Amino acid sequence: MKRAAKNRTKRRKLHHAPPGTAPGNILVREDALSPKIRVMEFDAVSLNERELNGISELNAFLSVSTGKIRWIDVHGFGSHSFIEQLADLFGVHRLQMEDVVNVYQRPKAEELSGQLFLISRSVNETLHGLEDAQVSLFVGENYVLTVQEKYEDQLDPVRNRLRQLTGNFKTHGADYLAYAIMDTVLDHFYPVLEKLGEKLDDLQDELLANPSRSALDHVLSTKKELLLLRRIIWSERDKFNDILRSSFKVIKEESKIYIRDSYDHCIQLLDLVESYREVTASLMDVYHSSVSNRLNQVMKVLTIISTIFIPLTFVVGVYGMNFAPIDPESGATLAYNMPELYSPYGYLSVMLIMLVMVVFQIVFFVKKGWLTKN
Amino acid sequence: MKRAAKNRTKRRKLHHAPPGTAPGNILVREDALSPKIRVMEFDAVSLNERELNGISELNAFLSVSTGKIRWIDVHGFGSHSFIEQLADLFGVHRLQMEDVVNVYQRPKAEELSGQLFLISRSVNETLHGLEDAQVSLFVGENYVLTVQEKYEDQLDPVRNRLRQLTGNFKTHGADYLAYAIMDTVLDHFYPVLEKLGEKLDDLQDELLANPSRSALDHVLSTKKELLLLRRIIWSERDKFNDILRSSFKVIKEESKIYIRDSYDHCIQLLDLVESYREVTASLMDVYHSSVSNRLNQVMKVLTIISTIFIPLTFVVGVYGMNFAPIDPESGATLAYNMPELYSPYGYLSVMLIMLVMVVFQIVFFVKKGWLTKN
Amino acid sequence: MKRAAKNRTKRRKLHHAPPGTAPGNILVREDALSPKIRVMEFDAVSLNERELNGISELNAFLSVSTGKIRWIDVHGFGSHSFIEQLADLFGVHRLQMEDVVNVYQRPKAEELSGQLFLISRSVNETLHGLEDAQVSLFVGENYVLTVQEKYEDQLDPVRNRLRQLTGNFKTHGADYLAYAIMDTVLDHFYPVLEKLGEKLDDLQDELLANPSRSALDHVLSTKKELLLLRRIIWSERDKFNDILRSSFKVIKEESKIYIRDSYDHCIQLLDLVESYREVTASLMDVYHSSVSNRLNQVMKVLTIISTIFIPLTFVVGVYGMNFAPIDPESGATLAYNMPELYSPYGYLSVMLIMLVMVVFQIVFFVKKGWLTKN
Amino acid sequence: MKRAAKNRTKRRKLHHAPPGTAPGNILVREDALSPKIRVMEFDAVSLNERELNGISELNAFLSVSTGKIRWIDVHGFGSHSFIEQLADLFGVHRLQMEDVVNVYQRPKAEELSGQLFLISRSVNETLHGLEDAQVSLFVGENYVLTVQEKYEDQLDPVRNRLRQLTGNFKTHGADYLAYAIMDTVLDHFYPVLEKLGEKLDDLQDELLANPSRSALDHVLSTKKELLLLRRIIWSERDKFNDILRSSFKVIKEESKIYIRDSYDHCIQLLDLVESYREVTASLMDVYHSSVSNRLNQVMKVLTIISTIFIPLTFVVGVYGMNFAPIDPESGATLAYNMPELYSPYGYLSVMLIMLVMVVFQIVFFVKKGWLTKN
Amino acid sequence: MKRAAKNRTKRRKLHHAPPGTAPGNILVREDALSPKIRVMEFDAVSLNERELNGISELNAFLSVSTGKIRWIDVHGFGSHSFIEQLADLFGVHRLQMEDVVNVYQRPKAEELSGQLFLISRSVNETLHGLEDAQVSLFVGENYVLTVQEKYEDQLDPVRNRLRQLTGNFKTHGADYLAYAIMDTVLDHFYPVLEKLGEKLDDLQDELLANPSRSALDHVLSTKKELLLLRRIIWSERDKFNDILRSSFKVIKEESKIYIRDSYDHCIQLLDLVESYREVTASLMDVYHSSVSNRLNQVMKVLTIISTIFIPLTFVVGVYGMNFAPIDPESGATLAYNMPELYSPYGYLSVMLIMLVMVVFQIVFFVKKGWLTKN
Repeated sequence: MKRAAKNRTKRRKLHHAPPGTAPGNILVREDALSPKIRVMEFDAVSLNERELNGISELNAFLSVSTGKIRWIDVHGFGSHSFIEQLADLFGVHRLQMEDVVNVYQRPKAEELSGQLFLISRSVNETLHGLEDAQVSLFVGENYVLTVQEKYEDQLDPVRNRLRQLTGNFKTHGADYLAYAIMDTVLDHFYPVLEKLGEKLDDLQDELLANPSRSALDHVLSTKKELLLLRRIIWSERDKFNDILRSSFKVIKEESKIYIRDSYDHCIQLLDLVESYREVTASLMDVYHSSVSNRLNQVMKVLTIISTIFIPLTFVVGVYGMNFAPIDPESGATLAYNMPELYSPYGYLSVMLIMLVMVVFQIVFFVKKGWLTKN
Repeated sequence: MKRAAKNRTKRRKLHHAPPGTAPGNILVREDALSPKIRVMEFDAVSLNERELNGISELNAFLSVSTGKIRWIDVHGFGSHSFIEQLADLFGVHRLQMEDVVNVYQRPKAEELSGQLFLISRSVNETLHGLEDAQVSLFVGENYVLTVQEKYEDQLDPVRNRLRQLTGNFKTHGADYLAYAIMDTVLDHFYPVLEKLGEKLDDLQDELLANPSRSALDHVLSTKKELLLLRRIIWSERDKFNDILRSSFKVIKEESKIYIRDSYDHCIQLLDLVESYREVTASLMDVYHSSVSNRLNQVMKVLTIISTIFIPLTFVVGVYGMNFAPIDPESGATLAYNMPELYSPYGYLSVMLIMLVMVVFQIVFFVKKGWLTKN
Repeated sequence: MKRAAKNRTKRRKLHHAPPGTAPGNILVREDALSPKIRVMEFDAVSLNERELNGISELNAFLSVSTGKIRWIDVHGFGSHSFIEQLADLFGVHRLQMEDVVNVYQRPKAEELSGQLFLISRSVNETLHGLEDAQVSLFVGENYVLTVQEKYEDQLDPVRNRLRQLTGNFKTHGADYLAYAIMDTVLDHFYPVLEKLGEKLDDLQDELLANPSRSALDHVLSTKKELLLLRRIIWSERDKFNDILRSSFKVIKEESKIYIRDSYDHCIQLLDLVESYREVTASLMDVYHSSVSNRLNQVMKVLTIISTIFIPLTFVVGVYGMNFAPIDPESGATLAYNMPELYSPYGYLSVMLIMLVMVVFQIVFFVKKGWLTKN
Repeated sequence: MKRAAKNRTKRRKLHHAPPGTAPGNILVREDALSPKIRVMEFDAVSLNERELNGISELNAFLSVSTGKIRWIDVHGFGSHSFIEQLADLFGVHRLQMEDVVNVYQRPKAEELSGQLFLISRSVNETLHGLEDAQVSLFVGENYVLTVQEKYEDQLDPVRNRLRQLTGNFKTHGADYLAYAIMDTVLDHFYPVLEKLGEKLDDLQDELLANPSRSALDHVLSTKKELLLLRRIIWSERDKFNDILRSSFKVIKEESKIYIRDSYDHCIQLLDLVESYREVTASLMDVYHSSVSNRLNQVMKVLTIISTIFIPLTFVVGVYGMNFAPIDPESGATLAYNMPELYSPYGYLSVMLIMLVMVVFQIVFFVKKGWLTKN
Repeated sequence: MKRAAKNRTKRRKLHHAPPGTAPGNILVREDALSPKIRVMEFDAVSLNERELNGISELNAFLSVSTGKIRWIDVHGFGSHSFIEQLADLFGVHRLQMEDVVNVYQRPKAEELSGQLFLISRSVNETLHGLEDAQVSLFVGENYVLTVQEKYEDQLDPVRNRLRQLTGNFKTHGADYLAYAIMDTVLDHFYPVLEKLGEKLDDLQDELLANPSRSALDHVLSTKKELLLLRRIIWSERDKFNDILRSSFKVIKEESKIYIRDSYDHCIQLLDLVESYREVTASLMDVYHSSVSNRLNQVMKVLTIISTIFIPLTFVVGVYGMNFAPIDPESGATLAYNMPELYSPYGYLSVMLIMLVMVVFQIVFFVKKGWLTKN
């Protein structure tokens, strides 16, 4: 039982302020990481990358307009005051900043006073199971602000492509950068699903060989993970669809083909999740069939042994009866009382008869197919 | 059986007037609490709070226009005449007042002659299970009227924030107050769901250890509670969506971002409810698997014991047969009748043979994996 | 089996003309009741109620225009010619009259040449189970024609309210009367569902105590009834929704709040039906769990008895073997052949050993929890 | 097994040209019936009916315009060239003619160059199960062309009504004729469903009495038939809905009330199909419950017999032990070795004790309720 | 277990670039086939077909405008540079070319700068199960470019019809050619589904005869294949629907009737898939019923044998008891100790009594129906 309790997927806790807390009341947790700010500023020809120290440096940096695209990349929520100042600097509504800090929110796209607020949600494969991750983006005319809870993230491929300033970054604006970030986050679902698929393959083998309780636990926890993934990816799909359908100011028409590509990826991922969900349903069928198969095996052994030996035991019981050949009082011969016992070949005959019975029964079982492995 | 009957979740009764009762016929129950009226009147700089005694004082209070935002906060339905007068005072349609009194209604938003009628529904965790609660709101240009059945409610956090006159209350109107009330009611679903989640965790442990009938009862009653919660939250979601989509006169455009936040909370709560519903489905799987596992264990014990001892019993039965070594009449030796019985090591040989049989069978069971715990 | 056959819910027969019958061909059944016509004529100040004899009197009555609202209330279809004349009198299309006579139709709302045709469907609780009822309404500017199959109906509360000429009847028109009729019909679902709920409570107790076949039959038949109710109420909901959405000429805008109230009642009823459907699903789970529990109990008894006595029987079988202590021919002592039989405490020792075996097994069963009631 | 294979519902084969065949390539099967052409020409006052011989006569007939409504009624596809000429005569697109010949298509309504193409699908009850039927209609301003595969059809009631020239035929046009044909085809689902309903009733009785494999087969095949019916009627519903929603040129506004009536019939039929589908689901529950009930019965018999006799067998085994009363060597009395055997009432006491054991066990079984029929 | 592992349907791997790869980064696999280019150029009177060697020849071919319709038919992706040049030549967006190369994508229709991009997905029946296939089409005013991964494809029927220049090719443009290609691909689902149907028939026979694990595996893998087919055909349906609804520049209005025909085929295929999915669900029912039937059979054999022989064994055990007729010490006659043993017909009477018992039991079993095959 202890093992089972350990196996149990941790129930995901919602970080939620106590009921009645004022809206937009940003609760930064005590153990929040101190913020790191990195900015990357680029145009078609050059890229400039630096780390900034605190809000004041960021403020100074932002006050100089260069006409270049800027990516302000914040890791760690720091403190309440830091988050408030950051919100003020970019004109972020308190409710939106609440969504940034209260991880984990559903992916969404929301425009407010010309600034697009995007939430991308992802899942990291860690040693202890799936771990949530959230990237919050604020996209303006020529900047992207990303805020994340932890230092490590999934965006290094974007940074590297940016450093090489290849391809589309040169010719596209901040909206393409936002797309690149969201698409990279989305891409991380592929290896996660690939691993889940392998796990399901292993489970199928295990369930066929031995329908154990722990295998069942794994199927059920995988089902739960798939449900979580489905919900997240479905929201991602909705987000990309919203961007495609709405005419957000900062998303240029020529960037929509990229958004549509991400949308297609969501559909593909959802297809995958659905087919894995079907697999888990099949695994439940396999499990139940294995269990009832095992019961069948047990009962067949019992029935075969009982059916063979119970009649034999009766036969030998017959010849264990003490019907007397001679009346103890009168001494008269009781000739009808088990004369077999006194026949010279009585014993051998009985043994032979029993052998014949066993042979007949075995033939019966073979014909029933009970002696072959199912 | 008595225990089971006690465990049973009480079926929720609908309070409904007898068929054919005229619509808008407000049936205040005999045991309704006598009404308490508290008003809070505030603008950006000050707040004025008082308790009023009966409809006449309320009438007097309302007749003086101050330009401030007012929250008229009524607890207890009192009597039919009280409710009628209250309705007249605020120009409330009889059908709406019926919804106020006939708790519990589905959450909804309805505009009638410029006044917005809102129903918020919630659930309180009590010792005896979940208990329904309903807050009815009438929102005008510069007032909010709330009517509730009982004295205690969930709105103290709003009152306290109002008393401190912090944040948004200063700058927003009656619509923000209405939002704050509805959002606080909605927030109370979080701890309820958190408790349900813990209960499901405990049930999972219990079902794995011992698939008892009472654990099954708990799963089924939890399923029922989740269904109820889902229905209520779904209606809340619809209500907030209605407010977002419709252009109700009293809801200002800049307040909609708050409504949207509540809407997002509904979605989040529904996600949670759905994942708990999946957990209950999994628990049913665990239950059935535990039950069939237990049957398997029982049958394995039976089969092992029978398979070992039935053949042995046959063997000892054989040597319990009374085939005579000597014909009682002629006295002739019947040499083929069980000579084993008269061999010096007959007994020991038979015992040895039976030991070998047992060893073989145990090896068979070990190979089948029947002796290891499932 | 006979009992089961009796228990069976009667399959509802559709009254349908043979294939290829011309549309609008009104087939009044031979055993149709002779028609009773009652008219109620009222305005804000007075009500006039009378019974009319046949179509000609009705014709005479209708030919005099009084400007009052009229309710022509027909019970019994009479004959083909009566129905035809009635249709002609009110300008009813033959297809609509077919729907009136071919009970039971789905609730619907249909406007034709300025006259609104409404079907309300209800269910009466009778001794023999649920019984369908249908009220067909034709609503004009200042009249309502209702046609029903039987004499007794559910509309007496409306008539009584009308006779007292209370409330809304004075100030509203024919549309309000139509609403009052439909709402009263709808109200009758509440007691029906309340009874079903009580029946489900009883079934739950019964299934836990004794998972009998007849209890299962009741669950299945209740499931069927719920399905029927759901279908009817769903159509009622659609009907009210149609009235709300369409702009039927005879429905005034200020009456729509009443229609919306009926619509809300439908939603509430559907919620109830859905939750009862979930209960029946849970009851099936309870049933299956009770059945497998019972099998478990049976198998446990078998296993306990077998496991205790089969080894004991083997032991006593051993000492029933006839290995001879003395060679019958040579008279030599065979000292290894069951010396226990000749030991002074042999019998007592064997009895003691068997007692110890039983104690061990009972300890094993207690530890397994097989001796406690599940 | 052979029986099972026979019972199996024949899988419906799709008649489909090999992949890559050019579209509109009309493949008339070798064994197609030679075409019979009947025309009925009528107006408000008279009807003229004749049989035509081949395309040329039909061509001649059509070339004379009379202003009357014409029904050209073709049975049998004849040959490729016949079908091609027919298509040319009525200006039918090759793809549509393909749908006419490649029975069985989904019901649909399609307008092309002012001519409405309708497919009606039906099912005939035959000795060998359900048999598909398809009526293809081409409706123009003043003609209806119907094409069917076989000679016998379901349209005789329409022809008869036409011959009597009753009712609506006089006053309505070709669209009413088309409606009458489609409605008659649709009507034939009622008796089919009525038969299915009776079959389900019988199956329920059979399953309760004896949950045999063949009854299960019948349930599963009925489920399949219901699925087929549902799909067809659903498409019919869509077709009538299309006609109602679209403004096809040949369908006059005043005919739509008839189409709406057919639409209502579809809904009614679908309701029926759905409720039968629920019944089959219930029957599966009944089957599974009967099977597990039977297993329960079997196990109870085994357990009762075993539980009564295994302990008794142990008792008699005890007194079959050979513990010697006298040491064979020393002749000493072994007083503790089974003195019961030498007590005057030993045998009777043991018999009595066993009787008491049996009585106790029977009381136990009665209390458990195992001796009463479930 | 090995067998099971082999039976397992290979999980379909997604070819997906590592997360964070730049979009439109076309990854041609190392082992891609070298490209073969065939062009077919035709108008109403003549067709010209040739094979081109590499991009340069293709470039030259395209640079000469002839006003004819051209089909550029590319097999094999060759290398990255080949694909890039091909994209440049036809003005294909990099993201679209990524979809061409990263097989297998969902079917879709996408217009970009006047060129329509279509993906058709199909499935080939091979020896090793179903194998995916994808045809990517780019359709312009007077050309169709198809790109496929492998040399062999399903389009030979189109080429042959084109070579004969029959029917619609003469009069229709590039859009008809694109339709012909997509329709041919779609047609290949028919034989695949036909085979699946036959497989399901065989499985049903097998499951009834012997509910083996491998048959279950086949059902589950068939279920998976049907799921895959459903997903693909559903997307095909969406694609054709998109073409019908959107007004893509290159699709002429008169070609839409053909697209609609393909759309109808999709619906028909989906109907088929759905009915097969129902069949697999029924097969699961059959499987479970066969398994529980088999367990029933096993238990019946056990119960019959036990019930007959256990009481008999008790009876013979009674007469194997050693109650002494004479007190060994006093020599007194113990007349109540088993006098039957000394009656002349004791043995015969006991044998007779047992025979009667067996007869009674057999009568009981016959009445219960346990001796007839289920």
